[in-house]
Amino acid sequence: MPKDHSKSGTYTAPPITGHLPLATQLRHIICGPETGFLMEAHNALSARIAENAGFKALWASSLTISASMGLRDANELTWTQSLDLISGMIDAVGIPILMDADSGYGDFNIFSRFVRKAGERGVAGVCIEDKLFPKINSFAKTEQHLASVNDFCAKIRAAKDNQIHPDFMLVARTEALVVGADLEETLVRAEAYYEAGADAILVHSKSNTAHEILAFADKWSNKAPIVVVPTTYADTPTDTLTNAGVSTLIWANHSLRAAIRSMEDITARIFKQQSLNGIDADVTSIEDVFSLTDMSELIAATKRYQGHS
Amino acid sequence: MPKDHSKSGTYTAPPITGHLPLATQLRHIICGPETGFLMEAHNALSARIAENAGFKALWASSLTISASMGLRDANELTWTQSLDLISGMIDAVGIPILMDADSGYGDFNIFSRFVRKAGERGVAGVCIEDKLFPKINSFAKTEQHLASVNDFCAKIRAAKDNQIHPDFMLVARTEALVVGADLEETLVRAEAYYEAGADAILVHSKSNTAHEILAFADKWSNKAPIVVVPTTYADTPTDTLTNAGVSTLIWANHSLRAAIRSMEDITARIFKQQSLNGIDADVTSIEDVFSLTDMSELIAATKRYQGHS
Amino acid sequence: MPKDHSKSGTYTAPPITGHLPLATQLRHIICGPETGFLMEAHNALSARIAENAGFKALWASSLTISASMGLRDANELTWTQSLDLISGMIDAVGIPILMDADSGYGDFNIFSRFVRKAGERGVAGVCIEDKLFPKINSFAKTEQHLASVNDFCAKIRAAKDNQIHPDFMLVARTEALVVGADLEETLVRAEAYYEAGADAILVHSKSNTAHEILAFADKWSNKAPIVVVPTTYADTPTDTLTNAGVSTLIWANHSLRAAIRSMEDITARIFKQQSLNGIDADVTSIEDVFSLTDMSELIAATKRYQGHS
Amino acid sequence: MPKDHSKSGTYTAPPITGHLPLATQLRHIICGPETGFLMEAHNALSARIAENAGFKALWASSLTISASMGLRDANELTWTQSLDLISGMIDAVGIPILMDADSGYGDFNIFSRFVRKAGERGVAGVCIEDKLFPKINSFAKTEQHLASVNDFCAKIRAAKDNQIHPDFMLVARTEALVVGADLEETLVRAEAYYEAGADAILVHSKSNTAHEILAFADKWSNKAPIVVVPTTYADTPTDTLTNAGVSTLIWANHSLRAAIRSMEDITARIFKQQSLNGIDADVTSIEDVFSLTDMSELIAATKRYQGHS
Repeated sequence: MPKDHSKSGTYTAPPITGHLPLATQLRHIICGPETGFLMEAHNALSARIAENAGFKALWASSLTISASMGLRDANELTWTQSLDLISGMIDAVGIPILMDADSGYGDFNIFSRFVRKAGERGVAGVCIEDKLFPKINSFAKTEQHLASVNDFCAKIRAAKDNQIHPDFMLVARTEALVVGADLEETLVRAEAYYEAGADAILVHSKSNTAHEILAFADKWSNKAPIVVVPTTYADTPTDTLTNAGVSTLIWANHSLRAAIRSMEDITARIFKQQSLNGIDADVTSIEDVFSLTDMSELIAATKRYQGHS
Repeated sequence: MPKDHSKSGTYTAPPITGHLPLATQLRHIICGPETGFLMEAHNALSARIAENAGFKALWASSLTISASMGLRDANELTWTQSLDLISGMIDAVGIPILMDADSGYGDFNIFSRFVRKAGERGVAGVCIEDKLFPKINSFAKTEQHLASVNDFCAKIRAAKDNQIHPDFMLVARTEALVVGADLEETLVRAEAYYEAGADAILVHSKSNTAHEILAFADKWSNKAPIVVVPTTYADTPTDTLTNAGVSTLIWANHSLRAAIRSMEDITARIFKQQSLNGIDADVTSIEDVFSLTDMSELIAATKRYQGHS
Repeated sequence: MPKDHSKSGTYTAPPITGHLPLATQLRHIICGPETGFLMEAHNALSARIAENAGFKALWASSLTISASMGLRDANELTWTQSLDLISGMIDAVGIPILMDADSGYGDFNIFSRFVRKAGERGVAGVCIEDKLFPKINSFAKTEQHLASVNDFCAKIRAAKDNQIHPDFMLVARTEALVVGADLEETLVRAEAYYEAGADAILVHSKSNTAHEILAFADKWSNKAPIVVVPTTYADTPTDTLTNAGVSTLIWANHSLRAAIRSMEDITARIFKQQSLNGIDADVTSIEDVFSLTDMSELIAATKRYQGHS
Repeated sequence: MPKDHSKSGTYTAPPITGHLPLATQLRHIICGPETGFLMEAHNALSARIAENAGFKALWASSLTISASMGLRDANELTWTQSLDLISGMIDAVGIPILMDADSGYGDFNIFSRFVRKAGERGVAGVCIEDKLFPKINSFAKTEQHLASVNDFCAKIRAAKDNQIHPDFMLVARTEALVVGADLEETLVRAEAYYEAGADAILVHSKSNTAHEILAFADKWSNKAPIVVVPTTYADTPTDTLTNAGVSTLIWANHSLRAAIRSMEDITARIFKQQSLNGIDADVTSIEDVFSLTDMSELIAATKRYQGHS
């Protein structure tokens, strides 16, 4: 599934290794010649599971992090709460995380402060969308309001001036298609965001087919990589998207959605039968829980440092 | 599955209703005539799923909360971090939560402070175990160390003096059997904890059968309800435990273990096929995610307060 | 310095006692017949110092809390950070705190969530100002932007619907005079906020005299108490304000400003002399630090609970 | 006030500049030939005031941070709370901070985790004392309990293995003299801590004279720099200490103690006079508050990024 080199401009990616800084790793994944795949994670555990599965980068989703905290995807968590949660995800894995930063938590100044603190905590890149604050999830059945291009570009410029690592990725996400704007406005916005300093453009669509994405890709100037989130157009073959010039795909919420299904099933079973009869066969073992959190490392370290377990 | 009234002493439970304070609800469940069942929750989402399934109370497990944060069950989260996470669980449900408070986070003074802040945040009760700080999970293959009876009773007395609500539940958990002490020491400790003010006794065992629990129940003075965690002796019929005098059972980690299994499966599938082909059928829908977080309430409130969506 | 009863409407205040809920105490202070005085506090220590001095209520100022954290008064702290800090202030005193909630941290939904969490933590009342988010301090030499009356009233209505305690105080602050609007708009806004449910109106002015405040008070309908912040018109005698109908005065930032002056002096002296020679005479003693934090209570509790110190 | 070169071993310090990493700056100050002076700070504001006064490094004191939060110096704040507060101090200044890490917050594992997170947040070094957890302030009139040498050295070794920056400073503080142990035990402990990896030794004394410190310095092997805290022996000339071989002095709590004195004075005055009459002359101005928090930078940035103020 080769990425069309002409689409990613003049960027020549060096080989990816685990020893590169996280921001650099993420830059290679999104801007390099190979198609990038980012798996959703909503906590440190799901992050580690995705890393174990082979993924090279993660998407820290506001929808799924909010939902795991029982909250709507509408900035009900503050950015400091989100960053604390994502810091735990970063500690748990060795691969970079692209953080969903919603509409930037306020104005350019708050977003700048956030970008500095995110870099300090090891966030490799952030995605910011061109809606007002507070945002609401793009799939919610309610009105959505776009930010002005001037206000949004102020955030992009300020963020790039405040990034700690030179390879920190600023992905600008346009919700133009989501709010019903046309292709032309979408392109104008994407171009403006690129000129303001965005490292990649995420075009979001809630269509059941990829036609909006393909139309955008066809007209896009190719100055910056295209990132997409095929949640509603999940049936579109990945080749169709990458052949059109898409650089990176985000599987945006599926780990949490898998977890919900199974938690509902097991919980209902246990409630009804008032016992654990037969449950162990359908859930992972305690030993696996220990393995996912490196319990053996703690036991070994206790012997090493304390001289006894 | 009637609870043996003689086992729960002179307590006469009024009918349980959603309008009672959370601490009172929890007291009725653990001390009342019906067998209590507490389902594990590790975040607000799993808490709501358990409430939706019909559970009347929850167990906020240190093992599963730590694991979801990528950490060992060894006090790697501070108590303020744990309480912040559990506050979100409390916001998400209308049923009481018994919080796993490990070995109490330090001395009587720290535990007192914790108990005040936990009550403020709506925690209905806490469980404290008689190990040193930091504790390590009872199933970890390493040495476990019991606290002195004096130090542990100091925490119990101080906690009861500092509870905000008169029905706040202090469940004292003895790890005597886990560290290899005999039944006699277990009984001596349980009796001391009760005398210090504990509202219930949790006897923990990592045996593959319930024989330790049944032996304890046979000798127990019945002054306080018995709570058990049948993780390793999951095959024991619930009736066997309740007929022996057990008041309340905790299904301690199964929601997270279900989630892990399914996240591993779905994540591996998506990684291998590099697409979402066929995934939607095996995960819950976005609409269900919205439903679990009351997105429709937000949309309705927007109309009500703003006059438009 | 009696408060003009006719100005505070039909409210009849019961006597204030320490056993009343904090929200009720604050309501009595702002709505009752006596003039209310709220002293600024920026952390738990300054809160306790103000309580020790005799104040019956506190003002948790965004300017001074932000400044103590090294930040601009422009929502650089998130509301969860602010609430955590103020929770510590509440723990330290027995008097109610009116929390400066800036422009409400976002829309009605975020403000509602904040009001619920603030009530849970013991905040007795909040003050919200009619500016956009993020706000900037009223004395900053930059443009200020008012929120629409509709958006602001949405927040007021939602807040009142979400308050936990029936006496929780919602003080609506209009910045109309600060941004250069005229008296008429100020009155229209104040009236709208009152109709939406505000319990008191704070009229802010950055004039060096009280003429704007006095003009407002002269025309105000007297349906709700008037609160003022005489930072720039500090020379105005208190009687002039209360005789005009002002109910409550906030000394908004003077504790921090005193602290800065003395910290600058002592720090410069120590730096220059490279010793502590003569310093003890000009600073409070370690014993006083212990006294302000009840160290003796900890020592006594250690003996009581542990049986030894 | 030259530092005795022979006391600081073979270390040759390069010139100190603002462009060095913070950990390196702190290493130069403590291990270099010049006497180091660390000024207490308890929040970002006092940190900036100390930097403005000319100090090259700061002491983030548990006593004063706890007291400013209304808490006893007895680990009532969790380490995550302390680190969040100190992160704000780091953001506010360009000089390194030595963080008072009490007795290490638990065992070697918790301390290791803390050291990693502290490094991530920009802490330049930490000081850990050889008492049990929770610790209590050395000046509190109660029993103090020393940790075993084995447990304490486990923490030191683990910390050095987990530091992020190679110049991160681990200052080992012995409380042997404070608990009444003799000089010999103090020396044995200091030597063991140095062998375990400590970068400097802090010898604490609560004597009213420096005789304990001078006796220690006379016998010390000089392998690691000596740090002292002359709070109780404040009258001792600095030369007396440095000539004996002391490398670094910490002015440990005087900024807060200055602030308390002035806040008590001003608050009492305002309470009594029920007005701000004459207060402005004795406190710093609002403009100074703005200056200390770089308000002008925000106004300039608004013009630069937004195109208008």
